Formats: sequence, C-alpha cells, structure tokens
Amino acid sequence: MKLAVAGVGAVGRSVAELAGEYGHTVVALADSRSAAVADALDVEAALAEKREAGRVGDLDPEAALEADYDVLVEATPTTLGDAEPGYGHVVEALARDRHVVLANKGPVAERYDEVRARERESAGSVRFEATVGGAIPVLSTIADLGPGQVTAARGVLNGTANFILTRMAAEGLGYEHVLAEAQDLGVAEADPSFDVEGTDAALKCVILANVLNDGAGAGRGFTLDDAEVTGISDVPGEALDLAAEDGRTIRLIGEVAGERIRVGPRLVPEHGTLAVSGTRNIVQLETTHAGRLNISGRGAGGPETATAVLSDVGRLPPLE
Amino acid sequence: MKLAVAGVGAVGRSVAELAGEYGHTVVALADSRSAAVADALDVEAALAEKREAGRVGDLDPEAALEADYDVLVEATPTTLGDAEPGYGHVVEALARDRHVVLANKGPVAERYDEVRARERESAGSVRFEATVGGAIPVLSTIADLGPGQVTAARGVLNGTANFILTRMAAEGLGYEHVLAEAQDLGVAEADPSFDVEGTDAALKCVILANVLNDGAGAGRGFTLDDAEVTGISDVPGEALDLAAEDGRTIRLIGEVAGERIRVGPRLVPEHGTLAVSGTRNIVQLETTHAGRLNISGRGAGGPETATAVLSDVGRLPPLE
Repeated sequence: MKLAVAGVGAVGRSVAELAGEYGHTVVALADSRSAAVADALDVEAALAEKREAGRVGDLDPEAALEADYDVLVEATPTTLGDAEPGYGHVVEALARDRHVVLANKGPVAERYDEVRARERESAGSVRFEATVGGAIPVLSTIADLGPGQVTAARGVLNGTANFILTRMAAEGLGYEHVLAEAQDLGVAEADPSFDVEGTDAALKCVILANVLNDGAGAGRGFTLDDAEVTGISDVPGEALDLAAEDGRTIRLIGEVAGERIRVGPRLVPEHGTLAVSGTRNIVQLETTHAGRLNISGRGAGGPETATAVLSDVGRLPPLE
Repeated sequence: MKLAVAGVGAVGRSVAELAGEYGHTVVALADSRSAAVADALDVEAALAEKREAGRVGDLDPEAALEADYDVLVEATPTTLGDAEPGYGHVVEALARDRHVVLANKGPVAERYDEVRARERESAGSVRFEATVGGAIPVLSTIADLGPGQVTAARGVLNGTANFILTRMAAEGLGYEHVLAEAQDLGVAEADPSFDVEGTDAALKCVILANVLNDGAGAGRGFTLDDAEVTGISDVPGEALDLAAEDGRTIRLIGEVAGERIRVGPRLVPEHGTLAVSGTRNIVQLETTHAGRLNISGRGAGGPETATAVLSDVGRLPPLE
C-alpha cells in the first residue's frame, strides 16, 4: 500500500520508518507546517531534515493530503471537541475514496457517527486499532469475536497514571513526588492533566463504547461528554497503604458496559490481572460465550503504536 | 455461511448450537457413525436424537461431507501420526473448493505442509484458531502482527495440567491426590496422559511453530516428533513448596523460538503473568517492535472453543 503519513510525532515517525518492513511505501509525510511527497519517499532524509531544519520538506502540509496514496495514516495530536485538524483529514481522504488509519483518537472519540457516515459514502475504510491500548490488539479482537458478543470492556488504559500509582504503592511516596519523578523520566508530560485527570483513558473508553454499541445497532455516537471521569491526582498515598493491608491496590480503571462509560481510581486485588505494573496496559473483555479475555502489553510508544497502525493497514482491502 | 459440522463432542455441539447466533446455517452434522443433512438443519432435534438414540440422524457419516456446505468445521477428536480421519476430511473439503475450520489439532500439528499444499490448490482456505488456546485469539493476533514480527511464543496451554499444579501449590497436596480430585471434577480425563504428559500442550506448540515459521518462509512442517516434551507427573509436591519459599511456582510451559519447540515444568514468579491459575491458559508473544503481548482466557470448553471456530468462519472470504 502507498501511505501518506500526517503527523511526525513518535507514532507517525515510527510508522514511516517501519512501513517498508511491512511491504508498504511512504509517498507523503507531513507535519503541521511542511510536507514531503515522492513516489517512494526517502523517509530517513525527510526525518533528518525535520530534526535539522524543523521541516520534513519544502512543500505545504496540504501537498501530503493531495498526494497519490492508498492509505492516509492520521497521526496528528488528539484534539477534543471538533477533533480538528484530524477530522478534516479523515473527511478529505474518504472523499477521495482512500482508506484512513487513525492513531489520533479525536475523530473516533468526538465525532464517531460523522466518521462512520462519511465512510459509508466512500470506497475507503476507516480503522483505528492504535487509538486504544497502543500495541494491544483490542479492536481487532472485538471485531473477530463480533461486537455483539462482547458485553463489557474494562482495563488500565493510561500508562502514565499507572506508572504513578505503581510507584506510589511500591515506594510509599506521595502523588506530587512521584509525578515529578515521572516528568523527569519522560513518562509524564510537563502538563500531565490529560493523563492524570483521566481524559486520555476516557477517550479510549468512549471509542470502545462506540465500537461495542455500533455492533449492537444502538450506536449513537458517544463523546467525552458521555463519560464519568475521575483522575488520580486526589488519591492520597495513605489510600494505597490501606489497600495494601487488605491485599489490594489502586488502579485507574476505565469501564464500558452498555451505554455507561466510567473512568476512575478503583480498588483491585494486588496480584490480580488488572494490577499491571509500570506503563503497561491491560484490557479485559467480557464475552457471552467465551468468558473473560485479558490482553495486556505496551499501551504506548512510537514503534509499539506503529505496529498497531501497520496491522490495520494490513487488514485493509485493496482499493478498486 | 453454510456449515457442515463433523464431530459432536463438546466443541462440535456448541458450534452447531451457536452458529445461528452468528448468522450461519448448519446444513450437516455428523458423528463417527451417523449424519443428518438438511437445507437448514434442526440442530436441537439432531442433538436430542444423539442423546436418546446415539445417532444424530439416519444417514451415513459420509453424507455430511458430501452435503452442500461452504465451510467444513472439523471437530472430530485429535489423533496423532496420520491425523485420520480429520486429515481425510480436510482433503475432501479442499478438493471440493470449500473452506475448512479446524478444532481438531491433528491435521495442522502432524501434517501441516500437506494441509497447506492442498489449500494452495483449492479455492477454499483453512483456519484453525480453535486449536491453540481455546477462546484465546492467538493465531489471529499473530496473523495481524505478521508472523515475521513474532520472534517467540510461550505460555500455559493445557488447563488440566495447570489446574493440577495450581491445586498442588495451594493445598500442599501430592500429584496423585490432586489428579484423582481433578478426575472427579471432570477436569481430567480417566486416561489423563494426553494432558499431564504434555502431549496436548506440545501439539499446540507445534502448530504455533508451523505458523511462525510459515511466515518466515522457513516452514518445513514440524510435527510432534520435533518437540522436546516433559510432563508434570514427576513434579513432587516438595518442589512446589521450595519454589513458594522463593516467591515462585511451577507451571507447565510450552515455548516456541525459531525451530525449537519445548514443553516442560518451569519455575515462574508466583504472582507473575505466566502463573495463571486453575484451567486458564495464557500465551505470551515476543514481538520485534511491540514488546511483549499477553493474552489469557479460557483455554478449553465447548462454547469457548466454538467461539474461536465461529470467529474463524467470520474471517473467511466468500466462495466464488
């Protein structure tokens, strides 16, 4: 497949670097202010130019969206509300009857019904495995089981929050102290609110709710407004100590059951399946006939998330 | 899809019972001595006849194989060596340009290259998710990642052996005692050797090795003879006590790395990912770019394994 990659953060960069290994060709690469387009783009050179000159090439970003690609890989930063510019990129690609693979959560968390409506009018398809749980194959597992067969999904969907809770429990340290440590390590952003307030986990749960209710025919396009969200910044170190005395610990758990979407700190068994440590993610799926499935692994990271993007590309049907 | 189901053990029965829920029609059902065939078979009636009269219908078993089906679900018991009669059923379905979905491990564990060769000459495809890890989507995850991206697979692949080791460790009981208990509970067969000697886990590892090496182009058709297998019948209760003192426990671990296939009792961390309890199964996949993925769930059971069969059916392309 010929790929146009929009966004050269950790994920977009890794997709461009690994595409060849999966048998695909990068024909366009864009950041927010520049683009490079070629029949077979020299990815190394474009990324080197980005590092040195702050641009991937001499063209305007729009040139990448107008290039002759089969699949637009949308890996620009997740935005809330109108989900722009990602949503506009999705619309443009579908209008050209091209496929879209999203790493950007915005369009399928905030404008799911609109994305699906545009997809129905297009010869292209939209896939978004990378938006939930990084490398963990959550959405493809749901698709294989049949969305109607999955009655609930829950799990640890934010590695930064999980790292902080793991460290607080293991070292008996307070939230502010561990947050500062996580920021030093690059595990938490300078502004950590997206992760520690539960927004990121909630967006993933909204996407899961959209997928699970889509299959049941009841989809009505959930958005972040439909989620009940509590973060971890108010979890006192003492709460973790008390939990440990009882063989339990605290994790930021996202949960989707029917139309209910909740994210918040929850008590879980200390050595139980949900108590993954560090930046790992886990998703539990409750199924009608197959009991509970657990899938865990790296929930973030450039190459990890790029693997999910490239798996999606591999599942796309040929165009025309 | 129109399904012919060969074998009415726990898995075949569940496939027949659940097919309608997944939008498929059962057109034939066979056990080793009888068959029922109809445009839309009354599954309930055929299974009732099986319970009451020991036959699913008035026809000979061959009638099911000659029926007008799209997919043969091969759920007869796993046999070693020539893998008959399952292998013959696969050959016959492919020769008729029909799809085959296997729950029977024999054909893909003992005659993998022959199955793939027959598949290449056919318009039909062969799928076998249900043969490894029951409800756990192991093979589809490998397919989605790309087999070349998975460098090793290991895990707990036999629920009976895992149940026995879990009980021995938890209760401080000896192997013979726990085995008898497992037989009373129906978790172990009257002749438990297939499970406790590691044969069943080894067959699953052989199938994994065939799939992983197939993608790398190095496939040479591994069989049970290529596996180094040690069972759990010689694990003394004292070994579990000693392991526990060190924060570890013992699990029957199957492992595939390159062309090496091994099954045997191994020390694992007591609260670690591989130490699943009871009859649960887990598979760990080591990947080139996405780190380690863990998938766990129910590794056996009629409806659980039927779910894997019906997921495979859902992934098949339409015929003609």
